[in-house]
Amino acid sequence: MAGETNRLLALAREVNPEPSARELDVIASTGEQVTIGLLALALQHQGLEARSYTGWQVPILTDSAHTKARILHIEDSRMRADLAAGRVVIVAGFQGIDERNNITTLGRGGSDTTGVALAAALKADECQIYTDVDGVYTTDPRIVPEARRLSTVTFEEMLELASLGSKVLQIRSVEFAGKYKVKLRVLSSFTDVDSTDMGTLITFEEDENMEQAIISGIAFNRDEAKITVLGVPDRPGIAFSILGPIADANIEVDMIIQNASTQGLTDFSFTVNRPDYKRAMQILEAKVQPAISARGVVGDDRIAKVSLVGIGMRTHAGIAAKMFGALAGEGINIQMISTSEIKTSVVVDEKYMELAVRVLHKTFELEKEPEQELKKA
Amino acid sequence: MAGETNRLLALAREVNPEPSARELDVIASTGEQVTIGLLALALQHQGLEARSYTGWQVPILTDSAHTKARILHIEDSRMRADLAAGRVVIVAGFQGIDERNNITTLGRGGSDTTGVALAAALKADECQIYTDVDGVYTTDPRIVPEARRLSTVTFEEMLELASLGSKVLQIRSVEFAGKYKVKLRVLSSFTDVDSTDMGTLITFEEDENMEQAIISGIAFNRDEAKITVLGVPDRPGIAFSILGPIADANIEVDMIIQNASTQGLTDFSFTVNRPDYKRAMQILEAKVQPAISARGVVGDDRIAKVSLVGIGMRTHAGIAAKMFGALAGEGINIQMISTSEIKTSVVVDEKYMELAVRVLHKTFELEKEPEQELKKA
Repeated sequence: MAGETNRLLALAREVNPEPSARELDVIASTGEQVTIGLLALALQHQGLEARSYTGWQVPILTDSAHTKARILHIEDSRMRADLAAGRVVIVAGFQGIDERNNITTLGRGGSDTTGVALAAALKADECQIYTDVDGVYTTDPRIVPEARRLSTVTFEEMLELASLGSKVLQIRSVEFAGKYKVKLRVLSSFTDVDSTDMGTLITFEEDENMEQAIISGIAFNRDEAKITVLGVPDRPGIAFSILGPIADANIEVDMIIQNASTQGLTDFSFTVNRPDYKRAMQILEAKVQPAISARGVVGDDRIAKVSLVGIGMRTHAGIAAKMFGALAGEGINIQMISTSEIKTSVVVDEKYMELAVRVLHKTFELEKEPEQELKKA
Repeated sequence: MAGETNRLLALAREVNPEPSARELDVIASTGEQVTIGLLALALQHQGLEARSYTGWQVPILTDSAHTKARILHIEDSRMRADLAAGRVVIVAGFQGIDERNNITTLGRGGSDTTGVALAAALKADECQIYTDVDGVYTTDPRIVPEARRLSTVTFEEMLELASLGSKVLQIRSVEFAGKYKVKLRVLSSFTDVDSTDMGTLITFEEDENMEQAIISGIAFNRDEAKITVLGVPDRPGIAFSILGPIADANIEVDMIIQNASTQGLTDFSFTVNRPDYKRAMQILEAKVQPAISARGVVGDDRIAKVSLVGIGMRTHAGIAAKMFGALAGEGINIQMISTSEIKTSVVVDEKYMELAVRVLHKTFELEKEPEQELKKA
């Protein structure tokens, strides 16, 4: 049924270029409804007793934010009764109802999130998500053929990997899993049923016999653009003066960097999604620059962000320095740097992105299996 | 969205050649759900405040007979609140839920029936059904170009016209309208919004200033086949001995004719839908004929049924005689005759069907407007 929902939504926009979100949800929710019916029939054909449930039949209660609703509560009694009777329960992803019985959809990442939320409601041992890849890798194997699949990765690392451009799982479902302590396992839909392949388990640091890797992976993203406001007076409230109008225009900001000032002036940089770049530049030039008397606004939409992610960074010194040294060794200029407890991100010229990923993968020996802790008896 | 539901159901049968009715309904109900969303968006684009409702949102409560459910109750409170607030309410046809919140569909004719049931629940003045024709005609204009559109027709006549092959409305919705005394008006979807065309009103005999036509129309049907069991012993229970096995095979029977017997033997004739003809013949030859010691079984699947329908037949003598005379005048042999209070049906060779319809239309002057009763002041 791939593409069906997009086809329907395009049809809706033909009928009404400014469609109401409520009606879009009525339309968009039908795709998964067809899918659960077909899946139930397929399983029944295999001799299994299967039963499909739409969001409202469970019900999955959400807020009323049509097209991007949040799950508030999942009623588990009917599912539990079916499971107790030996039935396979199939629940439509991506959809729910609000308290007034309006159909809602969860928006981007909503199907994975539904799966995690069901696992949380049912207190399942594990939530297995079957995708088009067979697990989480140290980086994209298309760029680094030696990339290695991780058997486990922590939630915190996965959040960084997901948000930094690894498209294995939607970040929202990972956040949801973290909040409700649901163990997530990523597996491939194309793996044989009787395979012993266990994909990648996304788990809690303290839980398992973990791999002792310092660095778990390298994420990258070329969908951003950087903007710098030059010669900004360094006074309280200036960051808000710059980013307030950007937020008002509903433009998301990722990295934000403000350096120490010299002579009361500083440069203020941030990155936005590339499609928002021109609009952000216009807002800054027309409104912000005159208002704060900045010296100028410059930007570049040919950049890429490369991030080293690993829970071991917390306790291992010198990781960032090793990273910068490796990039320098290849003559790659670092334009921006941003760090968090478990990641270090750099912005580089887009054309160096793949090279940067490869050299970092090699420098940190990510192709090698890390040593394992001894399992407890 | 025409054809979409059939496409989905075909897909379901690919997945599982013996699909469960419950899951078929989950899938089949999505077509109308998309349609109501799109219609709401289209009306909103015209500046109207419109809101769509699926069957479960109303809710429309049905029995649990998946794929052919019957409506039990319609909750009108939410629709009434919207109507009171000036909103256009759009309800998905053809679907409902059973008392366990399973999705049901109403089967053939279910969309028209939903409209009538909503009108009944809301005690509406009139239920207007927009179709691909602009009303009910004295007969099919493709066969008789002089066919005239009726401004009113009684429910009883409409039932006969619908069941005899006029495809304007599904018989089930007409029955439903009769049961709940809902006035139905048939209009064309292709008529201009500001047209004064009022289509055909299907109403109650006693209600309105009626047309005083004796005959309102001529229906016809070439989807039947006739079967005669010859030399049947004329004793109690013989009709059941013949039709019992036919009913057991789920074959519907339409006309049934048994003549007076001579020497304790009679011929027993009936008609079935043409696709059931061969199966019915096999059952009769293999099981029934030996069991009742009949002389033989003969059949013909190249027949057509032509029916004269009119409330005036009740009080006007000689209609049937005039009908038979007109057919004889054209050399059309009548193979079977069946009558009810407001119709006379004949079975003729299929090749004479159109000629029969034309000659009867002319004989009863159906192209002419009947005289009107004076309207009450």
